[in-house]
Amino acid sequence: MQPIPSIIDRALAHVQALEAYVPGKQPQEAGWIKLNTNENPYPPSPRVKTSIAKLTGDPLRKYPNPISAKLRESLTAHFELPGADWAFVGNGSDEVLNLLIRVFCDQEKSGGYMVPSYSLYPVLLDIQNAKTVVVRYDSSMELPVKDVANCGAHIFFLTSPNAPTGVGIPADAIRELAETFPGILVVDEAYGAFAEEDAVSLVEKYSNLCVTRTFSKSHCLAGMRIGCLLGNPDFVQLLDKVRDSYNVNVLSQEVGLAALSDTDYYEGVVTKIKQTRDFYINEWQGKGWFVYPSQANYIFTQPVNSVAEKGPEVAKSLFDFLRGEKILVRYFGNDPLTDSFLRISVGSESDMLTLSEAIDQWLKNA
Amino acid sequence: MQPIPSIIDRALAHVQALEAYVPGKQPQEAGWIKLNTNENPYPPSPRVKTSIAKLTGDPLRKYPNPISAKLRESLTAHFELPGADWAFVGNGSDEVLNLLIRVFCDQEKSGGYMVPSYSLYPVLLDIQNAKTVVVRYDSSMELPVKDVANCGAHIFFLTSPNAPTGVGIPADAIRELAETFPGILVVDEAYGAFAEEDAVSLVEKYSNLCVTRTFSKSHCLAGMRIGCLLGNPDFVQLLDKVRDSYNVNVLSQEVGLAALSDTDYYEGVVTKIKQTRDFYINEWQGKGWFVYPSQANYIFTQPVNSVAEKGPEVAKSLFDFLRGEKILVRYFGNDPLTDSFLRISVGSESDMLTLSEAIDQWLKNA
Repeated sequence: MQPIPSIIDRALAHVQALEAYVPGKQPQEAGWIKLNTNENPYPPSPRVKTSIAKLTGDPLRKYPNPISAKLRESLTAHFELPGADWAFVGNGSDEVLNLLIRVFCDQEKSGGYMVPSYSLYPVLLDIQNAKTVVVRYDSSMELPVKDVANCGAHIFFLTSPNAPTGVGIPADAIRELAETFPGILVVDEAYGAFAEEDAVSLVEKYSNLCVTRTFSKSHCLAGMRIGCLLGNPDFVQLLDKVRDSYNVNVLSQEVGLAALSDTDYYEGVVTKIKQTRDFYINEWQGKGWFVYPSQANYIFTQPVNSVAEKGPEVAKSLFDFLRGEKILVRYFGNDPLTDSFLRISVGSESDMLTLSEAIDQWLKNA
Repeated sequence: MQPIPSIIDRALAHVQALEAYVPGKQPQEAGWIKLNTNENPYPPSPRVKTSIAKLTGDPLRKYPNPISAKLRESLTAHFELPGADWAFVGNGSDEVLNLLIRVFCDQEKSGGYMVPSYSLYPVLLDIQNAKTVVVRYDSSMELPVKDVANCGAHIFFLTSPNAPTGVGIPADAIRELAETFPGILVVDEAYGAFAEEDAVSLVEKYSNLCVTRTFSKSHCLAGMRIGCLLGNPDFVQLLDKVRDSYNVNVLSQEVGLAALSDTDYYEGVVTKIKQTRDFYINEWQGKGWFVYPSQANYIFTQPVNSVAEKGPEVAKSLFDFLRGEKILVRYFGNDPLTDSFLRISVGSESDMLTLSEAIDQWLKNA
């Protein structure tokens, strides 16, 4: 008699081979300063609290609106798109990216992405067992438009502003790419609210272009998992075919609406974060540290120690030192383009001051 | 020059061919009595409200725990399973079913299901472009154990109690199947809390068996999208590889914990619903209507009109009449096993009274 195969052995071969995505560390105990996952240091709009308070009892027993209809309307009004059928709402923009790959990618139809950029794309493509195409930045971190245009991908994911560098892709480059790249172009604007330009205004002109956005960063709502796609109704129709029937819960829909309505509050939050960001970019440049120009809510910088050394060991040394001080930042040691840098989320003024003091401490000892 | 293919034409061929799942109607305006989607007529536990109130502001800005760790612990304690690695939490049990299919099914490894049962399985299998195997009930609605055991599916989805009939599958039949079916067996116990037996106690004994559960029905939380898999750690490990990084938001995790802690409240809710259910089963049997023995929170019954007719036209006539009275129930007209029946969710006592009066009205006219 044959031995019974284990459950693991019965999974699809490519699933058995997957490594699960490792998100940034989320310590459970108090006392940590978290500058590692680009969360917003400020609370969401007070309107969020009010909107939730209305819904804590009886309304929870009913299924949510399956298409998040009001939020689609509100998003397309906010972004001045032609109609509610130009937006799709997901359980975080991660779900939107996942569904795009389910719609468009397989072993022949490839998904492309930049290195470095958001490290989730290859994870999602591997889950789909899809063919992948990689285009590399060089250390200028300027988008190599022609390389992307000619890369042969069926769908290509651009992060703008890019992660982990913070560098924004100029709208002109997106425009050129939309005209010359024969595939589908997804501009992942998770950090778009902090940027100087965006691609949302281009989705009406270019039918092969769509944009993804999230409420996690600019709207202080990472815990609520609200993201969207903005693009022509063909994209929306296809995503509707593959999403779960009720993919966004009733509180997330209401919270999204409340947050979107409070433009003034969020403009204030974004302004504060940009001010803090620019202050510390200036400060670290003053120490002689190289910093990529950031259009996001994080800073990608190359630390230099007290004896003018830089490089992977120096970056890792500061990372470890900060961790010892209960300050979490992010280190991407797997690529020469990133391994001598740290990515530091822009926190509250007080958290940034603590960080700054810790860096001074490290400089004395390193 | 070739014409540029539309976005729709660039989707994977099987996605282009999909029909989106059509959930039960959710009217936006007030005044409807909803007995069509098996929502619970009672509000969730007061503890749910309290748990949400603690989290409406600052905590929302941080990412949720990626694995819903506390809820996994609480679920496995509640169901007396060996450890927290015996549970997986999803964005509704629909997501759990979807992920199981992503792990186990493709064009060679088939997914099987009963007809009639939950109509989402074929939708999810089609999204995955997977091979499907169908086993049919006959009008006895007793599970044909040998047919399932020999059906050749790689993974098989059993709904128990079944939808839309409400008939429970005896634990002995599940046991026999787990021993004789060589594939993976998923018992979808969305309505398990209303049933006389369940399969959770069998997952330790049979490594090829897992159970899915939801908070939507028994815990009055359809709006929050909380579901789970209970099964050995191999299942959990595989689902963790293919889920979104943060698939369950922070409020859903907290609400799930609060609900699970209030056993007394929910036992009361389940008892009330079963009493109402059994009262109306009795009432309709008294009118000469055939009713399958329900172990769920709905009743599947074959209406008989005033001139002793039954059949698809009679069922459809009552369905239409009730809709005119702003009472929604569910009609499954696509199969001879179901097309002379209506599925009626057990509502509050007052909603059921209104329904009952409307049925009397219809009987006068039909």
